[in-house]
Amino acid sequence: MDSKAILTYIEDNKQRFLDELFDLLRLPSVSADPKFAGDVRKTAEMVKSRLLDAGCDKAELVETPGHPVVYGEKIIDPNLPTVVVYGHYDVQPADPYELWDSPPFEPVIKEEKIYARGACDDKGQAYMHVKALQAMVDTGSLPCNVKFMIEGEEEVGSSNLETFVKENKEKLAGDVVLISDTGIIAIDTPSITVGLRGLSYMEVEVTGPNRDLHSGIYGGAVANPINVLCTMIDSLTDENGHITIPGFYDKVEELSTTEREQMAKAPFSLEEYKSELGIDEVKGENGFTTNERTGIRPALDVNGIWGGYTGEGAKTVLPSKAYAKISMRLVPNQHSDEISDLFTAHFKAIAPDYVKVKVTAHHGGQPSVVKTDSLAYGAASKAFEEAWGKAPIPTRDGGSIPIVALFKEVLKVDVVLLGFGLDSDAIHSPNEHYGVFNYFKGIETIALFYKHFVELKK
Amino acid sequence: MDSKAILTYIEDNKQRFLDELFDLLRLPSVSADPKFAGDVRKTAEMVKSRLLDAGCDKAELVETPGHPVVYGEKIIDPNLPTVVVYGHYDVQPADPYELWDSPPFEPVIKEEKIYARGACDDKGQAYMHVKALQAMVDTGSLPCNVKFMIEGEEEVGSSNLETFVKENKEKLAGDVVLISDTGIIAIDTPSITVGLRGLSYMEVEVTGPNRDLHSGIYGGAVANPINVLCTMIDSLTDENGHITIPGFYDKVEELSTTEREQMAKAPFSLEEYKSELGIDEVKGENGFTTNERTGIRPALDVNGIWGGYTGEGAKTVLPSKAYAKISMRLVPNQHSDEISDLFTAHFKAIAPDYVKVKVTAHHGGQPSVVKTDSLAYGAASKAFEEAWGKAPIPTRDGGSIPIVALFKEVLKVDVVLLGFGLDSDAIHSPNEHYGVFNYFKGIETIALFYKHFVELKK
Repeated sequence: MDSKAILTYIEDNKQRFLDELFDLLRLPSVSADPKFAGDVRKTAEMVKSRLLDAGCDKAELVETPGHPVVYGEKIIDPNLPTVVVYGHYDVQPADPYELWDSPPFEPVIKEEKIYARGACDDKGQAYMHVKALQAMVDTGSLPCNVKFMIEGEEEVGSSNLETFVKENKEKLAGDVVLISDTGIIAIDTPSITVGLRGLSYMEVEVTGPNRDLHSGIYGGAVANPINVLCTMIDSLTDENGHITIPGFYDKVEELSTTEREQMAKAPFSLEEYKSELGIDEVKGENGFTTNERTGIRPALDVNGIWGGYTGEGAKTVLPSKAYAKISMRLVPNQHSDEISDLFTAHFKAIAPDYVKVKVTAHHGGQPSVVKTDSLAYGAASKAFEEAWGKAPIPTRDGGSIPIVALFKEVLKVDVVLLGFGLDSDAIHSPNEHYGVFNYFKGIETIALFYKHFVELKK
Repeated sequence: MDSKAILTYIEDNKQRFLDELFDLLRLPSVSADPKFAGDVRKTAEMVKSRLLDAGCDKAELVETPGHPVVYGEKIIDPNLPTVVVYGHYDVQPADPYELWDSPPFEPVIKEEKIYARGACDDKGQAYMHVKALQAMVDTGSLPCNVKFMIEGEEEVGSSNLETFVKENKEKLAGDVVLISDTGIIAIDTPSITVGLRGLSYMEVEVTGPNRDLHSGIYGGAVANPINVLCTMIDSLTDENGHITIPGFYDKVEELSTTEREQMAKAPFSLEEYKSELGIDEVKGENGFTTNERTGIRPALDVNGIWGGYTGEGAKTVLPSKAYAKISMRLVPNQHSDEISDLFTAHFKAIAPDYVKVKVTAHHGGQPSVVKTDSLAYGAASKAFEEAWGKAPIPTRDGGSIPIVALFKEVLKVDVVLLGFGLDSDAIHSPNEHYGVFNYFKGIETIALFYKHFVELKK
């Protein structure tokens, strides 16, 4: 592969690469909300046609009970290695819309960053792979086969992907799964994610009286489900930041002192972290650093809460019901279904007899760890070194990509998390953005990964 | 006054009295929501014209910075006593609409009850006074003067009524203020409210990070404002159901054993109470009965809570902000402004350093007690005895009518709470209703009050 030709090609096509990504970002492919179903499908169609434009021999929409998976491939020689690319074309809901400085589905570049829902997560990052393929094809330097699997349900738990992968093991056969849905520590500190947390996501409903009551007539005599829910939520963690669900920590992987010392070497400034978030203090499990709290320790967060009157002014209601969405991030050896079961049993057990509770599990996902001694990791490391002039640091991320565990189990290949986002990209938040630099540098790094991967494979 | 003539008049005009009330109920006079401002005014106009129809010499809309007060009067002889009637034509918001069995602003009668927002609180109850006047005028038995003050901001704290009353002391001069905005114990157990709780209504905002965060990347390391708000709310009451705000109970009126024994004589079935509300257990301050908990003890309730993602499905957000509306019901000698200040200081004091809090006070109101040895109370008692065949029991209600304290202070007259609702009328809730029997019996009782009041005055 001629690395220079690739670089020149990227340089010559920058505007087109941006314009094409903008087309994709304009489609509100919010998988969680049924009202966007038509846009989700339009997005899948666009991804399919872009794969063909980029040089794929074939591309198709594979239907599922939910949103379709876009599959595409370019097989240049069955005897050569095959890179399987995974990404997702769906995005998180964009609300609250009023907190966006520019509309979420009208992409703009400000201060060298692309602002739009999905700019980073994951349209921007997935599209780098499409453009890397095109760069290699058009410069005659594609060194191996490539397969794409771009799904439309990642933000709602990839509920149909497992079936798709299991039913298409042959079709998806390859030597490595390459995913860009994570980040680097900083522009001057490239890194590769080697650990991801898992997820259990629960919804709870607490019912007090059978109807909304006047808080004057009944207040003080009838349990208020909001107050009760608050007390129950409060009790889920103790004063040391430990989660109190019995059995919750039983299987948590404990890292050795050496491993923790290794982790501590990653550059990190607590002052900058706090200042960037506008907080005076951090808060988490006692005895662990901030990076450990998100990297190697589980967590429990209320992602949403609602009940009673939430409009303008005052309404003196003692409501019948209160609700919360509560999720737990899991670390290696914890099992999502087991933790959901433990939560459900515990939440029911602590419900006082003056309320009734209902607990439902939303999608979950398994935690995973990527080996750093694999050939694929080695190729990714070399690609970073060549493109960024620095060897990447292995890191453990707090987020979840549940399908990583699935790929390892079903496809039996190594997974490499070659992501280029930054923590400050505000994914899942208003004003999500992605650096223009990261976008182009990512395309280059991905192309270089192919080169090093095939060379190491020889 | 010829009581029989009044009864016959009511009997002959039942359908018209219902039709006229229905016209009033069809107007969505929700004072809390600016989008209903036009309907609120239309309602005021209708009340004005109904006062004239009923026999008032004059009626007018008195403008305020908010919704107008409807004033009307019929002066038959300046030397005779004057009854001042207070009521309100505004209603609570009707949401959640989906929980109504029939639309809130399309009144219907089902099982002898009028279903509509405001059917009981307070259009139905206020309109009984208009029809009682008409019955007395048309039967030639009005024994004294009458003045009406029907306001449009009771459900938002009567914020402009104080100025109105203070500026119109002469106009409102009279011998008693009569209010129907409370209830009786049961159809077979008439009662008169002699105690009302006051109100402090607060809104709190807890801010964590400066933007919504991805709960995977930050969860466990950054304080989640929803979790923090839950912990703060939980801490506002202790395991005995006591409110923990320092100084909160300092001025609470303590009742004597005799007074509590007296209260305990009111008929009450805890089993029926629980069954009617669909709850297995009641919950409140230790050491007090259910009636004491709402009648003579203060309470703290979360009236609304919201934060994070509250839509369909799952969103893994660690939100920037969480909010709650928290109100406290107050008992005699507690002062609304003082309690609001105590709450604000306490809520700020308990905020941990990893969040910021903002506390705002909505409208409040003073608790009040009505004397049972007054001439006005005596007349009300006799009116009940004549119309219902039973002497009424004095009760203490949990709700608040903040202006009661105002009338006593500024107009220097006794107030009588001649209400005919039932606790089960679901005021402030979906499916609010008012008994057809109560509506007509109320009109009769009100007319009889005039008779006994003037007789006792002689």
